[in-house]
Amino acid sequence: MKPNVVRVGHAVLYVKDLEASRRFYVDLLGFNVVHETENALYLRGYEEREWSLKLEVHPEPGLKHLAYKVAGEAELDRVIDLAKAHGLPWREEEERGRPRMVRIQDPFGFPVAFYYRAEKHERLLQAYHRYRGPGIQRLDHFNVLTPDVQGTYQFYAEAFDFRLTEYTEDDEGRMWAAWLHRKGNVHDLALTNGTGPRLHHIAFWLPDLHAIIRAADILAAAMQTDRIERGPGRHGISNAMFVYLRDPDGHRVELYTSDYLTVDPDLEPIRWSLNDPRRQTLWGHQTPKSWFLEGSRVEGFEGGFVALKDSPLKGLPQHVT
Amino acid sequence: MKPNVVRVGHAVLYVKDLEASRRFYVDLLGFNVVHETENALYLRGYEEREWSLKLEVHPEPGLKHLAYKVAGEAELDRVIDLAKAHGLPWREEEERGRPRMVRIQDPFGFPVAFYYRAEKHERLLQAYHRYRGPGIQRLDHFNVLTPDVQGTYQFYAEAFDFRLTEYTEDDEGRMWAAWLHRKGNVHDLALTNGTGPRLHHIAFWLPDLHAIIRAADILAAAMQTDRIERGPGRHGISNAMFVYLRDPDGHRVELYTSDYLTVDPDLEPIRWSLNDPRRQTLWGHQTPKSWFLEGSRVEGFEGGFVALKDSPLKGLPQHVT
Amino acid sequence: MKPNVVRVGHAVLYVKDLEASRRFYVDLLGFNVVHETENALYLRGYEEREWSLKLEVHPEPGLKHLAYKVAGEAELDRVIDLAKAHGLPWREEEERGRPRMVRIQDPFGFPVAFYYRAEKHERLLQAYHRYRGPGIQRLDHFNVLTPDVQGTYQFYAEAFDFRLTEYTEDDEGRMWAAWLHRKGNVHDLALTNGTGPRLHHIAFWLPDLHAIIRAADILAAAMQTDRIERGPGRHGISNAMFVYLRDPDGHRVELYTSDYLTVDPDLEPIRWSLNDPRRQTLWGHQTPKSWFLEGSRVEGFEGGFVALKDSPLKGLPQHVT
Amino acid sequence: MKPNVVRVGHAVLYVKDLEASRRFYVDLLGFNVVHETENALYLRGYEEREWSLKLEVHPEPGLKHLAYKVAGEAELDRVIDLAKAHGLPWREEEERGRPRMVRIQDPFGFPVAFYYRAEKHERLLQAYHRYRGPGIQRLDHFNVLTPDVQGTYQFYAEAFDFRLTEYTEDDEGRMWAAWLHRKGNVHDLALTNGTGPRLHHIAFWLPDLHAIIRAADILAAAMQTDRIERGPGRHGISNAMFVYLRDPDGHRVELYTSDYLTVDPDLEPIRWSLNDPRRQTLWGHQTPKSWFLEGSRVEGFEGGFVALKDSPLKGLPQHVT
Repeated sequence: MKPNVVRVGHAVLYVKDLEASRRFYVDLLGFNVVHETENALYLRGYEEREWSLKLEVHPEPGLKHLAYKVAGEAELDRVIDLAKAHGLPWREEEERGRPRMVRIQDPFGFPVAFYYRAEKHERLLQAYHRYRGPGIQRLDHFNVLTPDVQGTYQFYAEAFDFRLTEYTEDDEGRMWAAWLHRKGNVHDLALTNGTGPRLHHIAFWLPDLHAIIRAADILAAAMQTDRIERGPGRHGISNAMFVYLRDPDGHRVELYTSDYLTVDPDLEPIRWSLNDPRRQTLWGHQTPKSWFLEGSRVEGFEGGFVALKDSPLKGLPQHVT
Repeated sequence: MKPNVVRVGHAVLYVKDLEASRRFYVDLLGFNVVHETENALYLRGYEEREWSLKLEVHPEPGLKHLAYKVAGEAELDRVIDLAKAHGLPWREEEERGRPRMVRIQDPFGFPVAFYYRAEKHERLLQAYHRYRGPGIQRLDHFNVLTPDVQGTYQFYAEAFDFRLTEYTEDDEGRMWAAWLHRKGNVHDLALTNGTGPRLHHIAFWLPDLHAIIRAADILAAAMQTDRIERGPGRHGISNAMFVYLRDPDGHRVELYTSDYLTVDPDLEPIRWSLNDPRRQTLWGHQTPKSWFLEGSRVEGFEGGFVALKDSPLKGLPQHVT
Repeated sequence: MKPNVVRVGHAVLYVKDLEASRRFYVDLLGFNVVHETENALYLRGYEEREWSLKLEVHPEPGLKHLAYKVAGEAELDRVIDLAKAHGLPWREEEERGRPRMVRIQDPFGFPVAFYYRAEKHERLLQAYHRYRGPGIQRLDHFNVLTPDVQGTYQFYAEAFDFRLTEYTEDDEGRMWAAWLHRKGNVHDLALTNGTGPRLHHIAFWLPDLHAIIRAADILAAAMQTDRIERGPGRHGISNAMFVYLRDPDGHRVELYTSDYLTVDPDLEPIRWSLNDPRRQTLWGHQTPKSWFLEGSRVEGFEGGFVALKDSPLKGLPQHVT
Repeated sequence: MKPNVVRVGHAVLYVKDLEASRRFYVDLLGFNVVHETENALYLRGYEEREWSLKLEVHPEPGLKHLAYKVAGEAELDRVIDLAKAHGLPWREEEERGRPRMVRIQDPFGFPVAFYYRAEKHERLLQAYHRYRGPGIQRLDHFNVLTPDVQGTYQFYAEAFDFRLTEYTEDDEGRMWAAWLHRKGNVHDLALTNGTGPRLHHIAFWLPDLHAIIRAADILAAAMQTDRIERGPGRHGISNAMFVYLRDPDGHRVELYTSDYLTVDPDLEPIRWSLNDPRRQTLWGHQTPKSWFLEGSRVEGFEGGFVALKDSPLKGLPQHVT
């Protein structure tokens, strides 16, 4: 049986300067601090009962791993079985508040971990008097850059039963991007064509479009317009309102809200043509080149960053500045 | 194996005057008409690809059935097995656009149907130029009045693996209300203590709190303040923004938005004390008596409405007008 | 010439416990503190460059005065002329940051001050990273309880050229309430029938309905639902979204947004019938009795509170709980 | 005495194809049609009791005139006196529903009209069941391209007592843009440096940022992303949320909301540096070149369009795409 992945769980990002990270994530964006140590911050949104973002000091910025939550402990053994069957490196790793966590390196080079239970913290969802910043709610999804979108999609669909909700195709039927879910909205994982393996972004859910606008206002007020890479806008794909930020280490963070329910067994994935002007931003806005070209390096199984491969699909979509 | 219920699917309501219903649901609330016949209207929200509400002309207002969508056709056979195992009446029934549907009468007298696939209609989610009214998105949940909340909860938990997210208890530990889900938010089905079996309400998801306010504004503008029974407000339970309406036949319709994700395997249900002033409405508002006492009769397996039983749990919560 | 009143300017409220006031106004509602002394807090909204609310320690809660800003210093002399012409008590008084202020007692017993210039403070409107609470913008209006709405209206219309925008009348043509403006929206001053002279409420402008809802959420989160007296809702009169709060001394504070422009010379005042269910709240909600009956005492010219007179217009509107 | 201008009143635009205009303004943006004839549409927003935009068929697109509402009929005679004193061409003109209107050509070539009273139409502000589109509320301001911003500002300040709220200056102290008001918010008239006299845009007030986003969604849904020239975004100047559209004749229309109150006699105008990245859009977005370069021709006193003059202030601000 395939491991039953429930949802996107957490990300561990390497950052060079924890104080700079704190100013961005905590002071401006209002993330709640669950734990802090000399070398790490453990953060969550107001809806979350467990941390979902760990920032860990490291000489080079990068992604330590992306983690998914599974339906129970037995699923972790299924992950190990799956790793063995595919010849993927795996091991048990420790993370604070996760009683058991299995980490693999997927066939495309991404460091991916799985856990089934997590230490719970005080409920904040209705502690409105303690909200700060735009009101980050919860981790929503990961987006990764891969030179083989089609292959990566097939692996996650077959190995973990990730389900396709939307995808971008060129006129020759080649897949340039894909949106895959487990938890019932548009995605837990998106795949973007490009030099990889790299992390494109992690995304957090906000309560509504007001909160998206407020995030941009706050960064502008703090004289950090440079941290606003793209948006606010509405995606054609997913229909969500978004803004893309760059943190002090260049990691891309999306704030995201209002997509749609995708649990139907007879759901029909939506196909977007690569050069549809409404695909990236429904309103026809152009996307900055950096958004297509830049990403965060990912850690290999033995440490260091995984070597990069270019994609055979060259060029950018139209509607790029 | 238990039937795998994916989500709340549709409701069929009996109404006396289809034109009055149309003015309320279509002209004011902006539901999209998928089909119409002399005796019925088939409606959907802008996010839905299939109808989710059928209004059928009948001499007396009532509920024909509530329907859930299951994960595949094999689940329908599991529903039949379950009906046989529990000695529940069942049969296959026809509904437009549902290739196969099984209907049972549950042990508490509720008419419940199951289907696995539905005819799809044009995607409207991004057809913003065609939106009318507050922007109904999709069916979100059912709420039923039952004199045995504890028993009804146990049946749905055991038979269909509905999961508890929140519940109301008195000081003696008796359950007065329960919120149960399958699709990953607070509920697909809520149970309210009271004379039953009756339908308390059906609820539709709206995109945000603006839409909730707009719904109330529209009804007031159309001189239909009588149709606004309760709210707009924010629930303590579920944290959602809401407004409760009464349709021309007295059926209660909730417009609802912004609850939270509930897919975690280690989710801890939230207990509310019966007399917590923030339970019904976070802001401490009183709830009108009618909201606790009135509901729609439900159809029996052989036609006619199921006989009512009073609840052994008497009295109303405090914070009632 | 009549004194040219530009807008509502500030209020000075007597409070018994400055720390309790600070928790309410500053910690929860997020007012910005401009000055503080042992006996007083000077507060403003994020749009204001000068303080608009002073809370001053006093043995009994009450209103010290309401103040209006006038178009220039010469207008203050016109206020004095007017006081002399009407035989009203007047004197120059000092308030922090007001180079010159004239205070009168109006014919109905209300303590009213006028100033033309004020000390300016740092601009905060775009300092979004410093916003706390729902985002109070600016003082919008005063509402007073008077046993002679008609007479009070005529005085302010004739003496200060306040213009009528909306009013409530019974079937016999008697005026029960009036909304009067100078600054170009629905009101700077509203008059409500009742035992007086008393202050009914002071109101602050919020940026949008989200902020109104957030205010209620914050108070509920802080376990202060008792401070929410009425709403959130939408007024029929003024079309504004509102919530009424009661501060720790019982002073009523309205948070208010989204009325309309009233500068037209040919504006036609809107008449509301006393028992129109949409007048108080467009959605037909009932108004709590306390809202009609309770208010803050106002200071007399020689100190102490002005003696109260009942209104000849007895009874409450319908649609009261 | 100077003519007492109360507010921006209406615009008359020449359009080539009334049906195309109707699809844009009425079908998509939801303007209310007050009158229609074979050659003209008279439109208003939901808050307005009189029409504020007339679209008139003409062989070439352009601006017939901009009109202001004045405080009474005597002000029209003051306009005539002013025209005579300045040697400006003037005459009385007819417009539907305006009992008397005086039109001048200002010293910079702009056709400007004045009226004091207008025919009133049914109140729609609270007719929420009839709202269509994003919910246009009312005309907010005009923005014109002039090669002499400093001179135009001085004329309107001296002749009509327009008050400066914000302005853009380069390092040499030369004024590149100015925002002037009469009605009490940031502007009734803005001046933009450039080849002129031309109309830069007319702007309508929307109720909140939701409505701004909805306008963009509607145009995108109708496959008219080309009509979205800039935004949605938040201005640094004025703090307002905005989106700029281009109508079928290329006329620029801004939808605008949430600026601030400017009635204070001691208001201090805000100076913006020409190359401040937050000036045009608080979030640092670039502005498309077309926004600076394109505008609508304006009609001369004897018909035909007024000849254009280039500005001595050359070049564009930074932060332009």
